[in-house]
Amino acid sequence: MKHIISALVENEPGVLARIVGLISGRGYNIDSLNVAPTQDSTTSRLTMVVPGDDRVIEQVTKQLNKLIDVIKVQDLTSESYLERELALVKVQTTSRSRSAVVELAALFHAEVLHVQQKSLVLQMVGPVERIEEFVELLRPHGIQDISRSGVIAVAKSES
Amino acid sequence: MKHIISALVENEPGVLARIVGLISGRGYNIDSLNVAPTQDSTTSRLTMVVPGDDRVIEQVTKQLNKLIDVIKVQDLTSESYLERELALVKVQTTSRSRSAVVELAALFHAEVLHVQQKSLVLQMVGPVERIEEFVELLRPHGIQDISRSGVIAVAKSES
Repeated sequence: MKHIISALVENEPGVLARIVGLISGRGYNIDSLNVAPTQDSTTSRLTMVVPGDDRVIEQVTKQLNKLIDVIKVQDLTSESYLERELALVKVQTTSRSRSAVVELAALFHAEVLHVQQKSLVLQMVGPVERIEEFVELLRPHGIQDISRSGVIAVAKSES
Repeated sequence: MKHIISALVENEPGVLARIVGLISGRGYNIDSLNVAPTQDSTTSRLTMVVPGDDRVIEQVTKQLNKLIDVIKVQDLTSESYLERELALVKVQTTSRSRSAVVELAALFHAEVLHVQQKSLVLQMVGPVERIEEFVELLRPHGIQDISRSGVIAVAKSES
């Protein structure tokens, strides 16, 4: 099962290296990861998707909590949360195929960001599964480039 | 100046640790970073925002290119590109303030994902600057939680 681990960390040089080093040093995989500042520029929020059973994830969160620069770690999968991912996809198009690609984008509420002779750049936001369905449907047209943000998530619970 | 570095890498355990270790080992900062699989599950695309002058960035890209698992590194800032970021923001609301927050969301084309007694969760996509403007305007209402994806980007050039 995939777990979404969300960590609030100090925005200091080296923190990311220690976290990633800890996870990969123990042989755990990371499906996706992102880190960016929060509303308070002294802290960053890091979101990781880590596959593994409950025991593995518990170990990972315990180890992370021990790091000095880690303020709080949550396994969001154990509570109610909202998750989204962003993708930019550059798809090959011909004058013939363009309308089919645009139609597909509309069905997924994706936005056309850029139009060129032989390609379109699409912007799609949604749960990871929807992004993956969209990418699969675009694949036969020829994907030239893709940039995915990885999952970001917030807990629904009110603090 | 901030540079957007985009790297295509092998989807192997330890790659992220080597990249992040290299960057922070040399004392360079990373403003935001994300990594997720591409359309080909054997590769991942990593996008980093690194502040620094052209000389620093040239060194970073050269060093990254030397890593065995790094397939291709681009400094997108030196070419024409599209960049976007995704943010989920949980904002405090009262029955009085809710409509002001919803109005602000509409002005930024942000979506209301979840409504609770004392909070709203908003989803916003846009260039980093727009995200930051939005967060600043929400700040007086009280931000309970924020999760940002960091920048993702694709070059406009057709391959």
